[in-house]
Amino acid sequence: MQNTLKKKWAEGLPVTNAWVSSPSAWNVEILASTGFDAITIDTQHGLSADLNTLIPMLQAMRASSSTSFVRLPANDPAYIMRMLDVGVEGLICPMLNNAEETEAFVRAAKYYPDGNRSIGPTRASVVFGENYMQTANQHTITFAMIETPDALKNMREMAQVEHLNGFYVGPWDLSASLGYKKLANFKDPSFMQILKEILAVAEENHLITGIHAGNPKNARLFADLGFKFLTMFNDSSALKTIANNTLDEFRNNTGNSKLRGY
Amino acid sequence: MQNTLKKKWAEGLPVTNAWVSSPSAWNVEILASTGFDAITIDTQHGLSADLNTLIPMLQAMRASSSTSFVRLPANDPAYIMRMLDVGVEGLICPMLNNAEETEAFVRAAKYYPDGNRSIGPTRASVVFGENYMQTANQHTITFAMIETPDALKNMREMAQVEHLNGFYVGPWDLSASLGYKKLANFKDPSFMQILKEILAVAEENHLITGIHAGNPKNARLFADLGFKFLTMFNDSSALKTIANNTLDEFRNNTGNSKLRGY
Amino acid sequence: MQNTLKKKWAEGLPVTNAWVSSPSAWNVEILASTGFDAITIDTQHGLSADLNTLIPMLQAMRASSSTSFVRLPANDPAYIMRMLDVGVEGLICPMLNNAEETEAFVRAAKYYPDGNRSIGPTRASVVFGENYMQTANQHTITFAMIETPDALKNMREMAQVEHLNGFYVGPWDLSASLGYKKLANFKDPSFMQILKEILAVAEENHLITGIHAGNPKNARLFADLGFKFLTMFNDSSALKTIANNTLDEFRNNTGNSKLRGY
Amino acid sequence: MQNTLKKKWAEGLPVTNAWVSSPSAWNVEILASTGFDAITIDTQHGLSADLNTLIPMLQAMRASSSTSFVRLPANDPAYIMRMLDVGVEGLICPMLNNAEETEAFVRAAKYYPDGNRSIGPTRASVVFGENYMQTANQHTITFAMIETPDALKNMREMAQVEHLNGFYVGPWDLSASLGYKKLANFKDPSFMQILKEILAVAEENHLITGIHAGNPKNARLFADLGFKFLTMFNDSSALKTIANNTLDEFRNNTGNSKLRGY
Amino acid sequence: MQNTLKKKWAEGLPVTNAWVSSPSAWNVEILASTGFDAITIDTQHGLSADLNTLIPMLQAMRASSSTSFVRLPANDPAYIMRMLDVGVEGLICPMLNNAEETEAFVRAAKYYPDGNRSIGPTRASVVFGENYMQTANQHTITFAMIETPDALKNMREMAQVEHLNGFYVGPWDLSASLGYKKLANFKDPSFMQILKEILAVAEENHLITGIHAGNPKNARLFADLGFKFLTMFNDSSALKTIANNTLDEFRNNTGNSKLRGY
Amino acid sequence: MQNTLKKKWAEGLPVTNAWVSSPSAWNVEILASTGFDAITIDTQHGLSADLNTLIPMLQAMRASSSTSFVRLPANDPAYIMRMLDVGVEGLICPMLNNAEETEAFVRAAKYYPDGNRSIGPTRASVVFGENYMQTANQHTITFAMIETPDALKNMREMAQVEHLNGFYVGPWDLSASLGYKKLANFKDPSFMQILKEILAVAEENHLITGIHAGNPKNARLFADLGFKFLTMFNDSSALKTIANNTLDEFRNNTGNSKLRGY
Repeated sequence: MQNTLKKKWAEGLPVTNAWVSSPSAWNVEILASTGFDAITIDTQHGLSADLNTLIPMLQAMRASSSTSFVRLPANDPAYIMRMLDVGVEGLICPMLNNAEETEAFVRAAKYYPDGNRSIGPTRASVVFGENYMQTANQHTITFAMIETPDALKNMREMAQVEHLNGFYVGPWDLSASLGYKKLANFKDPSFMQILKEILAVAEENHLITGIHAGNPKNARLFADLGFKFLTMFNDSSALKTIANNTLDEFRNNTGNSKLRGY
Repeated sequence: MQNTLKKKWAEGLPVTNAWVSSPSAWNVEILASTGFDAITIDTQHGLSADLNTLIPMLQAMRASSSTSFVRLPANDPAYIMRMLDVGVEGLICPMLNNAEETEAFVRAAKYYPDGNRSIGPTRASVVFGENYMQTANQHTITFAMIETPDALKNMREMAQVEHLNGFYVGPWDLSASLGYKKLANFKDPSFMQILKEILAVAEENHLITGIHAGNPKNARLFADLGFKFLTMFNDSSALKTIANNTLDEFRNNTGNSKLRGY
Repeated sequence: MQNTLKKKWAEGLPVTNAWVSSPSAWNVEILASTGFDAITIDTQHGLSADLNTLIPMLQAMRASSSTSFVRLPANDPAYIMRMLDVGVEGLICPMLNNAEETEAFVRAAKYYPDGNRSIGPTRASVVFGENYMQTANQHTITFAMIETPDALKNMREMAQVEHLNGFYVGPWDLSASLGYKKLANFKDPSFMQILKEILAVAEENHLITGIHAGNPKNARLFADLGFKFLTMFNDSSALKTIANNTLDEFRNNTGNSKLRGY
Repeated sequence: MQNTLKKKWAEGLPVTNAWVSSPSAWNVEILASTGFDAITIDTQHGLSADLNTLIPMLQAMRASSSTSFVRLPANDPAYIMRMLDVGVEGLICPMLNNAEETEAFVRAAKYYPDGNRSIGPTRASVVFGENYMQTANQHTITFAMIETPDALKNMREMAQVEHLNGFYVGPWDLSASLGYKKLANFKDPSFMQILKEILAVAEENHLITGIHAGNPKNARLFADLGFKFLTMFNDSSALKTIANNTLDEFRNNTGNSKLRGY
Repeated sequence: MQNTLKKKWAEGLPVTNAWVSSPSAWNVEILASTGFDAITIDTQHGLSADLNTLIPMLQAMRASSSTSFVRLPANDPAYIMRMLDVGVEGLICPMLNNAEETEAFVRAAKYYPDGNRSIGPTRASVVFGENYMQTANQHTITFAMIETPDALKNMREMAQVEHLNGFYVGPWDLSASLGYKKLANFKDPSFMQILKEILAVAEENHLITGIHAGNPKNARLFADLGFKFLTMFNDSSALKTIANNTLDEFRNNTGNSKLRGY
Repeated sequence: MQNTLKKKWAEGLPVTNAWVSSPSAWNVEILASTGFDAITIDTQHGLSADLNTLIPMLQAMRASSSTSFVRLPANDPAYIMRMLDVGVEGLICPMLNNAEETEAFVRAAKYYPDGNRSIGPTRASVVFGENYMQTANQHTITFAMIETPDALKNMREMAQVEHLNGFYVGPWDLSASLGYKKLANFKDPSFMQILKEILAVAEENHLITGIHAGNPKNARLFADLGFKFLTMFNDSSALKTIANNTLDEFRNNTGNSKLRGY
């Protein structure tokens, strides 16, 4: 199994993550060729969640050095095991609220004696080799999302759950559920203070902290603060943005005056 | 059937075209929401060519004002009829060399007495209504690609083929097959001269001229020259470009000096 | 977002609903073209439940005036959020038994502060616009199925759950679980009395009442009683019926006597 | 291999055929359960033409007594062989004009020495048994469409092509290409006269004659004339028709007068 | 519905089962043609779990005498009902720990009054006939997996759950969770003793016992002990094994010495 | 681009080839993990021919050292270009009869000035890098099948077609079309003599010779003769064989006498 991420983290370096909302193995193959350290398929809010979409997406990044992540739809043991069985290396679990839920998440991701993951690594043993079962517990990466008021309250206990590797901040749900009017506003000092506290708790417990930074500029901001797993790209919004920019650029710059407003 | 394109052309306006290489109905739905006048699915060099990929792509743009085009894989009557039967409105035929081939292309796209398209508009009659057959011949748009030395030689005869609506310049194959070292080089005056001649022949024959401009800047250039169907966006290369730019922007601007070269 | 249904309901009019059991975007596109007010994809008992089947089905009805519904497989928050994220407008939740379950259902369908739906409307924000999140809570339609003895007992409390829009009667499961020998028998006065009571409770609480009427004749019956969401068509059973009728009509009417019995 | 059709023909009986335009294995499974003698997947004008759609359709009818047919997209040897390799039993070839084309069609469907079909019956040998190659030439059914003026002119020569099993009349293309205003008009005596001539030529040459009758009433008409392969059902148009009828029946018969016109 | 299995069991005969991990209707069709008594699609650890993969797999075995089983991903009532609605005949439920969980499993698989399965057998009623609902409770086969220490402790109570048909031993998870170093080691007398106890409890309660035997040699061993449902084949591992053997055989036996070790 | 094959050939070593008839990316991923030098997807007689099946198959072998081949359905320039555009490295063209056809095949596979392949390497440039176009002509491997009497007659001229890399013998079609009763009979000296002549002609022209050996034993035979591209495995027939063997082994060896013959 690849240790690219863990190596970078050991050197104190942050890693770059691309978020995939489109149900497209081709998008994954393109992104894997550009050199992101990690590629996360969003099975909660993205447009792919089923094996016949996900497996080709995983196959499409296997030749690259990108590590495969899935953001889970829920804290569902059957789904967690399935993702690992088909070869996913990292899991981001949404909507966790306390240590008990976090422990259930992590245990579902680990074989006996560390957890209760059922045996049957159908694709994983083809991808990572016949001895996959011996090394899986060490290599599978688990991130607990911090995105609810309860998680904020209980994060110290959550951080101590054995075999948890990190926190992943969901700034949209977090700011909404805390009652902020402007969501995921990284210019609001009170909100940034909360994010720094999450980071501090994580660091005390030797956990990695990740965040949905949204773009490279914000990713830089969070890298400088100490975040180590930086989501800075989303394939669906990138396409929308660049398509809109293309039309704008054409319309605004043409010499033909009739073209302007249309 | 929609006449957006023909209306704009009647007013002397160029239309914007997005090129879809990815096999993705979701990409099409995103692009259709941004307001391109036309969306062309490339079934020659793109990653979709089969009905179970193409039909969802067409369904995904039906709610928009974008007109659906397909660049054909070849001058193949069965494929031409199939594309029209499933609701495609415009066809771009590659690798045509002379008037005879062009006429075969156009006739395959038109019902008797204008051509020999076989009857059976399964999806088209659901999309465009039960009287589709009465109006199809007028509305189906046909573009002949000019991309081979033979086409260049024979373009005057090709331009006179009845029911042909336009030329579509393929600058990559054209420059390669003419022996240019640098392909699709719009800064080379000799190559631009050839493109202007194609445009002139088209205009003499009241044909629209389209071109694979590649980006909005080049599209502006060709719009100003008189080209009226401007491909300025490709979904697959856009994704590659913006992903690379994201990583570059993150790496170059971070305050953490260790991040630079990695 | 479309308000077709809410407008009709405001005028006291019932709406027509087609039920889709087949995993077919093409069936949806045909039904959407015929003018049903709503089209419900059955992800509980129908043959589609996964995103790669459902998304094309939703895309295929987007160009029409039909409002998209999904009958959920279960009261599962992750699935509820996913359906809304991909653009479904109405949800019918099966097997609810009491107010608590009903509230959990409705809260999963609403953003903070009305509920705990997680943020990430990937396709919904493309379909309904960038301000989707501001209006979603008002527009998403929620129906609680009344189909168990417990629901019948608790329907008064269920009807008072905030943000619930209606009851949807499942006459098959309801009659079975009440011990009726003949299921969904609309000619049985005792069963009809139960349906009228459900309607009465709904009306007292300003809820819409829907029902699986099965065919247009029964739909008329229920429309006259005051039901306002009338499922009168199922694509799979329609195909079976009309195919059988075709063979019968051919065999019975042929002049060739040898054809009769075969 | 099944001989149901050939048995019925030997007794002078016509066979019933359902036409499948939808890309749906589920539709095929439903139709196969109703008892059609043959089910024809239309790969020319229908919405399925690719192996990953067609193979499940063929699997879905394998348990039934229905014989599988494909209407080909064109007289294309590679496609013909592929259809037979995946287990199709009967082929209907469109747009044939003369004996030479007809012979090319039939030869592509037969192994040496009767033709030049390449060896590799991947699915056919699983479905029909390991000795498939020995019996395939006898069992594969070949129909030549008569739907062009040239075919009408040359049908006597076409009828004598060795191993051809029948003519299949395409009344829409035939009437259109003969210049009829009203297409496929079975009430026009001049058009019926042409159909009878085709039948007569077929009978002289011991060929079966099939026709796109469209509905059971017309199928009865043609059965009485002597046609023996009667297409009387189309899954896509059936769905459209019955959906429209459902809405009409509901709207016209409701007691609530406000419902009428809407 | 087929009673092949129940007939064999009534005669005291074991049945052969093939395990399908690959998401492949074609694999299922091949295996069904070889004569396995049952074919089990593994939706827990295998690569198929979604309807658009599973339905073609079920269609592909319908023409055979093989009985269809699914190993469930979890004890999830919605999934259980869905599997039965699409025509699965037997269910194997993993990770059950006690009688309560077992009863929930069985009740989800049975219609009222034996359970709470919701009504809507969309495909089942096409496959097994219109009276499917009357006979389903008798024919659906339910196996509870014995693979956790809790199940071992509680198996006597589990065995008495009404309508349960059998135990299915998962030797991998069972041996792992009991702390065995060597997993599924059928040569370890202490482990074999446990398996015999499971068998004994099952036999006392007139239950069938199945086991993941892995290969025909072990299947013979367990058949001789009294196990009656013998999984002796896995499509994915079979392919891996035979491919490796092929390369080995070629490399070792070639006369060209340069080919050895490469 | 990978040069594994060309390196082995330069050393005089034969390469091992697995033939894939199943439409399964998973099968390809398994085979790629076992170490075959080449994997050939059969789009002529196999069950995959369309991009949405083929692309995942190619992605599934990208991480391995196996070189990707496709056996084409026909000598069709549009299909040839498409295969190369999506990243296939080697092409095997069936049913070639003479030098002219062979030259058309090779020219469709090469860019100007070596041929007329149209420009648009959508996936190939992602897989092999941005400079793909500069190196493609050198790396694309072309095999002409020798499987018809005409090819046998014209093979000397075919062997001299520029840029052709090898002959691939199709022993089934070749023996059938030559009138052999027993097909592909490698024990028939007269047939073996023909194969040796093909090999001799190839060697004189510095061409590689491949053959459909079918199993490792025959592959060894042909390797010793000098054949350098040895197809020794077919995924579909392997599955059928090993499944049959499993059932046989279980039935024959069980101690329970009742199990024999059943």
